[in-house]
Order: sequence, then C-alpha cells, then structure tokens
Amino acid sequence: MTIPIAERIQCDALRRKLVPVEEAVQHVRSGDVLAVSGFTKAGEPKAFLPALARHLATLPDARISVYSGASLSEEVEGPLAPFIARRGPYMASAASRRLIHAGKMQYADAHLSHFARGLMYGFYGDIDLAVVEVSRIRPDGSVVLSSSVGISAEALARARAVILEVNTTIPDFTGMHDIVLPPAPPTIGWPVPVTGVRDRVGLPYVLLDMAKVIAVIESCQPDFPVAFRAGGAACDAIADHVLAFLGECRDRFGWHHWVPPLQSGVGNIANAVIAGLARSPFQRLHFWTEVFQEGLLGVVADRDRFAGASASAISLADTAPARVEALMRAARGDLVLRPMWMSNNPELIARLHVVAMNTPIEVDIYGHANSTRVDGSRVVNGLGGSGDFFRNAYLSVAHTPSVRTLRDGRTISCVLPYVSHVDHTEHDIKCIVTEHGYATTFGIRSPRARAGEIIDRCAHPHFRPLLHEYVAMAGEGDEPRLLATDRLEGWWRDYDAACTAFPRGPGCASQGA
Amino acid sequence: MTIPIAERIQCDALRRKLVPVEEAVQHVRSGDVLAVSGFTKAGEPKAFLPALARHLATLPDARISVYSGASLSEEVEGPLAPFIARRGPYMASAASRRLIHAGKMQYADAHLSHFARGLMYGFYGDIDLAVVEVSRIRPDGSVVLSSSVGISAEALARARAVILEVNTTIPDFTGMHDIVLPPAPPTIGWPVPVTGVRDRVGLPYVLLDMAKVIAVIESCQPDFPVAFRAGGAACDAIADHVLAFLGECRDRFGWHHWVPPLQSGVGNIANAVIAGLARSPFQRLHFWTEVFQEGLLGVVADRDRFAGASASAISLADTAPARVEALMRAARGDLVLRPMWMSNNPELIARLHVVAMNTPIEVDIYGHANSTRVDGSRVVNGLGGSGDFFRNAYLSVAHTPSVRTLRDGRTISCVLPYVSHVDHTEHDIKCIVTEHGYATTFGIRSPRARAGEIIDRCAHPHFRPLLHEYVAMAGEGDEPRLLATDRLEGWWRDYDAACTAFPRGPGCASQGA
Repeated sequence: MTIPIAERIQCDALRRKLVPVEEAVQHVRSGDVLAVSGFTKAGEPKAFLPALARHLATLPDARISVYSGASLSEEVEGPLAPFIARRGPYMASAASRRLIHAGKMQYADAHLSHFARGLMYGFYGDIDLAVVEVSRIRPDGSVVLSSSVGISAEALARARAVILEVNTTIPDFTGMHDIVLPPAPPTIGWPVPVTGVRDRVGLPYVLLDMAKVIAVIESCQPDFPVAFRAGGAACDAIADHVLAFLGECRDRFGWHHWVPPLQSGVGNIANAVIAGLARSPFQRLHFWTEVFQEGLLGVVADRDRFAGASASAISLADTAPARVEALMRAARGDLVLRPMWMSNNPELIARLHVVAMNTPIEVDIYGHANSTRVDGSRVVNGLGGSGDFFRNAYLSVAHTPSVRTLRDGRTISCVLPYVSHVDHTEHDIKCIVTEHGYATTFGIRSPRARAGEIIDRCAHPHFRPLLHEYVAMAGEGDEPRLLATDRLEGWWRDYDAACTAFPRGPGCASQGA
Repeated sequence: MTIPIAERIQCDALRRKLVPVEEAVQHVRSGDVLAVSGFTKAGEPKAFLPALARHLATLPDARISVYSGASLSEEVEGPLAPFIARRGPYMASAASRRLIHAGKMQYADAHLSHFARGLMYGFYGDIDLAVVEVSRIRPDGSVVLSSSVGISAEALARARAVILEVNTTIPDFTGMHDIVLPPAPPTIGWPVPVTGVRDRVGLPYVLLDMAKVIAVIESCQPDFPVAFRAGGAACDAIADHVLAFLGECRDRFGWHHWVPPLQSGVGNIANAVIAGLARSPFQRLHFWTEVFQEGLLGVVADRDRFAGASASAISLADTAPARVEALMRAARGDLVLRPMWMSNNPELIARLHVVAMNTPIEVDIYGHANSTRVDGSRVVNGLGGSGDFFRNAYLSVAHTPSVRTLRDGRTISCVLPYVSHVDHTEHDIKCIVTEHGYATTFGIRSPRARAGEIIDRCAHPHFRPLLHEYVAMAGEGDEPRLLATDRLEGWWRDYDAACTAFPRGPGCASQGA
C-alpha cells in the first residue's frame, strides 16, 4: 500500500522540487562525488541509483565516486559499478569486486566508524551530492530517514547539493532514529551520554539546509531482502560453543543475572548463535549491533527475552512493508537506529561492555584474523564494523567453521599458521570458536602456548598434525614464524596435499562475516 | 635531600607497619601474582623488587607472576627475571626477553588500556599482592602515588594484600594525579567527562582498604633515568616531514590556530619531532600522551608554547629530585598524571582529536606496521600504547628511518612488502614518514595505488626498484600479495643481496618505539 506522496512531504517548498527520477539524475556529472544512504541493503536510494546508471551510460566515459554506509544491494550497485571510479568504505557487490580486482575501481577499506568521522573531518574531500532515502519530509524541511542511518546525516551535512528520495511504500519511520553528528576539528568532542542500548541523545530526524535540495523524487520500491541462511550441524555446534563460552564468562566474571549487550554479524553462523540465545538460559537480551537482522525477530517476539536493540540498519529477509511495520510496533521504544559512527563508536562499545561476535574468513594459530581477503590480494568485502567491535568489545569472539570446501572439491583449513591478510591482530580477539570448540586468550600465556590450544580445540583434526608441525619447524621464539624459506614452501605443499585428501562429508557452508 | 619518613606517612596505623625491606619480601611465596607500580622506569618499587629477587633466590624453584604498567628498568627487572613465570603487559628488559624467547617466561602482549581494564574485569585472575611506590600516605590511609600511575590504582583495588614503598627521596607528588578506576561488568560504564588535556575528573590520591596493607617500606632511590638519545640528520629530516605533514593538515582541514593534542613516543625520532615543534609555527601545544619525557622540558620552559600535558608517567633523563620538583613547580596545574586506562583511553583519544606519533620496527608498502617482533618470532618489547593511540587518533603517524644498519654491517629496509608481524593494520595508519618524505592514506585509493606512493616517497632509493618489482610480480588484485612460492623466495634472496650491497654512510640509529 503506497501512501500518497503529499502525506510524506509536509514541506511546501520541497514538494515543489518533486521531479521524475530521470530528470533528477541529470544533475550528476562525470567526476562528481556522491554520498548515498544505505547500509546492508537497507534504506538505499533504490529509484535514483539505477536511473543514474542509465544516465551515466549516455555520457562519454562518465566516472563518479560513491560513498555509502555499508553494502548496497547488487540490484543497485551492479548496474552502477562500471561508472564508479572510487568506492568506499564497504561493498559486497560482485560487479564492484571484479572491477576492483582488475584495477578499474579504486576501493579503500575503512573501519565504518572511522569513515563516518573522516567524512566530517574532510579526509574524503568535498561531497558534490548527497542522495538519501527518507520516509518523510517534515514541515521545516528536516527529514525522517528510513530503514538505515549509516552516513546519511554526515552526507546531508557535508554535501554541496542534496537529492531526497521519498519512499512512499515503506512505513513512516518517525521516532525510530537517534541522530547525532560527530564533532569535527577544530571543535573538540564531548562525552556521548549514551549509557544504555535504548538511550536516545539526539534528534529523531536530520536537520537540513533546504536551499541545498536540488530535487525530490518518489520511490515505491521496498528494500531488497537480505537472504536468511540457516546453517547446518556445524553452525549449530559453533553456536553451542559460543553459548558455552558466554556461560563460562558469566560464572568466572560474576555477571549473575546481567547479560552484556551483544553484537552479532550477518550470516548463517550469526543466525545459529541468535537462535541458540533464544533458547538459552540468558534472559533480558540487549543488542548493540550494526544490523538488526531477520534472526532477531524471533527474539523480539519473546518479550521476556528481548530488552532492547540498537543498530544502524534493519535488514530483513522479507521486507514487505506490513512486516516492517509490525516489527516497529512490537519493538518501538526498544529499537533505536543510529548513525554508524554511533552504532560503531569505540566509546560506546567499550562503555556498554559489548560482546562482539563476527565471522572472519580465516584465523591463525596466534589469533590474528582475516576479514577481507581470501588470498591476501583480492578484497571480498570491506572489514565493515568488525574492527570497531572486536577492538573495543568487552569480549570479542571470532567464530568460523574449521574448514571450508571450495568449488574445486578441495577442503581448506580456516585455522592457518598465518593469515594472508591481517585485519584484526591477536591483541584484539578474546575467543576463537569453531564447530570443534573454543579457545580463549585470557590470562598471561605466550602466543606459542595459545597456539597449541587454538590448534587442539579449534582446528579440524585432519589439519592438527600439520599445524603442530609448523610450530615445531618454525623453531624458537615466543611466537614462532617461518619466514620465506624452502621449509615454508614445503609446508604449504604438504598443506595443499592435505586439502585435496580431506574426506568428503557435510560441513558448514562457506560464508562471509 | 631525604625527607623524614614520618612526614611522608601521616597515618598512624600504617606507620606501625613500617618494616625493613628484607622482612617485607618474606610475604611473597612461590606462585604469587604480583601487580606492581611502574611505567617507563618511573615510579617502580625500586627497593622492594631487587630485595625480592634476593629473597626468591633462597627459595627452591620459586616462580611468580609480575604485572606492571609499562616497562620497568633493567636494574629492577633484570635480577627478578629468572623468577618470573608470567609477565605482562609490557616489558623492555633484555633479561626477560632472553627468557621469553627461550620459552622460560610466558609473556602476553596487550594494549595497555585493555590490560588495565582486563585487570578489573578479572581477565588476569586474582592478584595476591600489589607493590606500589607512593610519595605520601595520607592520614586516612589513602596514598599519593609518585612519578607514574600505570596500573597502580587497579592493583591496589584488586589485590588481596598490599605493600607500600614510601619513597622519601623524591618530591611529594600531591596534586599531580587524577585517579579514576575503570568500571567493570556487571557495572556499566559512564561517559568520562574529560574534554581537555588538563581536565581532572577523579581524586588526586588512591583510596585504599588499610586492612589489606601487610607492610610499609622506605625507599631512598630516585627513578632510574631514561637515556635521552639525540638523533642524527635522518631523525631531523623525519621531524621536518612530520611538521610538513601537520602543516598540510592544518591548511587542508581548517585548523586555523588550533593545534591537536599530541602523543609522541620515546626515542630519538620522538625527541627530534618535539624539538622541531618547539621551533615550529605551532603555538599553544597540548600533549595527550603516555610518557612525559625529557624532550618536553624544553617546551614547558616556553610558557607561550606549552599549554598542558597529560601522561601516565614522568620519565626523565636526569631524575635528580630537585629537577623533578622544578618541573612540577613549572607545570603544576598544567600537567596531569593519569591511570593508563585513562591516558590510553580510546574514548578520550578520539574525543580530543589526538595526533598519535610512534616508531614501529618496520612498515609495509600497504601501511601495516610491526611494533613488537623483528623477525616475526621473537618479541622485542610489547606494543604498549601504540595500538591504543594509532587506532583511535584523529591522525596516526608511523615514523621510522627508511633503513636500519645491523651489527653485521648489512643495511635492511624498514619499508617491506609485508611485515613479519602485524600489530597495526593498514586501516589504522594515516601517514607514514621516513627521512625521505611522507605518504598519507587520505581519500579513496586502492592499497596498490597507496603502495606506489609509500615506496616512492618513504622507502630508501636503494630499495625502491626491488619493492616495485615485488608489486609487479605479485600480479593482480587490489592489494597484491605474493604467497609462498619460488618467486617469493627468489625475491627475498634478491633483497638479502641488496642489504649486503647497501652503501655505507651515516644513517639514523636503530631504535624502538
């Protein structure tokens, strides 16, 4: 059911700027820097960006820069990718990935909280145009955002010009957001007064200089869904070990009835963990996370279990407006959408004692983790908020299947002697979990001692002897590392043979963070 | 001039616990966990720990655990090292290093801010004994610390028993400290209300449960000095490039007359940078740093230049009490000593827009940095606060000489294709500086593009062709990495030959962070 647009644009001056999308995209010229709304497919300008791709195709050699909160959907980013010269700070698009690997698109990965601040600090230069999906324009020209916040507030503040995409199909999100801008030098910051997941410390809308708005367009496209992938037995085993770890911490660190706010990524392991929590002895769950995802709906439904959630986006597997509206009715007051510099703010993650749980691509025996590059050379997606959360969390949990079966039939180990790209250092991970168990880094133990535990508890038994052999071969030192030598090459040859010899059987499907 | 001890112990009950140090050390038994004061040689228990080493030598197979703030002096840690089974979170002792590498001492590196919080969270277990140097015991049994804070407040709060070492030779530090304890789960944190370098938000002394004090001893030993090493031409060139970078940022990001608070490490490059600042156009300098070091004395002397400093320790090259007292008179009110969880607090480093400047061992062409392990396998010292600062700073500057000459006469490059241990990821470094120039990571550029700039601006010209060759050989991808293959081994052989062929000449001496 689409709402008449007049009900969603309460400002006369801006209603007069309503134009067809084909006209609005004409404002974009080659070389422009665009900052757009959107976070894990939620709240992206779904009408504008595809139309922009069609427009740019008519210009000779048009290239633009695109900044978003986190990932855009393939439906939106795919057609635009050939025209993107520079992309940041996160993407999960197959089309962009190909161009990035081929050197045709410049892509710089950044911690999401850093990127949002950096926009305000001027680290990413001037922004020519902000394109932001909104669910309502208020009488004074300020705007109510939609299913995500991401960098929308910074984009609207910094951009020279603004195009608003009013979505008349989605519910009116009034009251869901808590908007604060990061203070930029030479202004010194102030203590952010958030001390609870549900705290609101800003405005429920974004203030806007109406004079900057060059066009308003209408969209009737709901968010594209984020597939909900159920895991197999391996994912359930990982979830069980995560819960066992949390139980150990509760007993060891005197939580009593308190449960720390939880951050969990998106994907089948995260889904299994949430499902596990929903039937665990842990009551009164708070979520301080990036994405309010499908798996959390079940928790919200249990009012004894759900105590509140904060995120930068609502990304569901079924985005039918009635369904989103039902969630808002069920959780309103207990669910807050924040700018990503707030959802991922080190200050708040540390203060609230968040438990961060994310899935890297691979970990190593010393506890370093790779979240971005399968072979060290080619980015799969950005690291997103995994660094913001892992580094600052009370407890940081890296969970991954112990092995991953490739398309060529070989099975590789997700626990390696060293990762091919380090996104998170051993200093930032408190617990590594696979379907075989968990290993922690509490207390004072040398990396060598921790390695033995990670191998024995987390690595797949098929690969354990080889990993122990690596440590033995690497010789002396508290964190033995074999540098490039014959022996290292020999080890990798043995490892390749072991991957090929891995017995076939059911495993946990390959997946990202 | 030593003050009569009665003037420094104002509490009758604790004055009665005054015993000779040889008696006090008898309280320590094998297996005990000790948390001691001390940070970069400042404020360590200089009477107790050497006496403890003599005591432990009389016990069969005595082994203890020792936690400190940051480094202890070799005079103190050296004799004790053979008895230390577990050591954290930072050390810079040759004696400990040898034992750690040989697997005889377990050492776990941690971000200093994490370690201090972890002590309160229970991550490091129970503490049997806190041994803390104080400059005064107040009538109610609370204590005024001395030249450092480090983990002293956490140690006194968490330990089962306490020994106080009253130093009657050093000045009375009353009024220099700002003591706050980190809130531990299940207590949620609160916004730390610091918004300026000189802000005080806690108490100038540490509250203490008098019943826990099992002994009080006297010390007449001033802090051991931290050698002040002047740099050569290369260090001056690095300092010039750092200042040029700061000048560029001032113009580009609209600082006008504002200068961000500065964090700088200890060492000859840091000294050169401070000396450069002291004659730069930058006025009203604030320092938000870990260690108030010798080089800053010159800045304090210039009252138009010095606006305030916050640190966890005062570590001077000449620790004569009269000299320390003169500094306190000159800077009192503008110089605050804080617990290391506050000096290194991500919340405050981000809020105050600190510029962090540290010297890693090596960096790589993509901007990762190694602060702890020369060959990837053997720890040189902990990463200390470099991660706390680099990750959360407004601007993070990694400065290093482009090359380092080893004892065997070979000269190695400090800019490598990949570092042998990653302590700081490419996501956390904004600027790399060597004596040849600086390269920044502002804006959106692929790691490959950034690598070209780091090689051309920062690497030594002798090694540039080889580094470019590596990128070319590594092939496709946005961050090409050569995994273990014949080609990688061949590259390292060529590199070794280049190190041997490096022309002799003056360089910047090897040094740590």
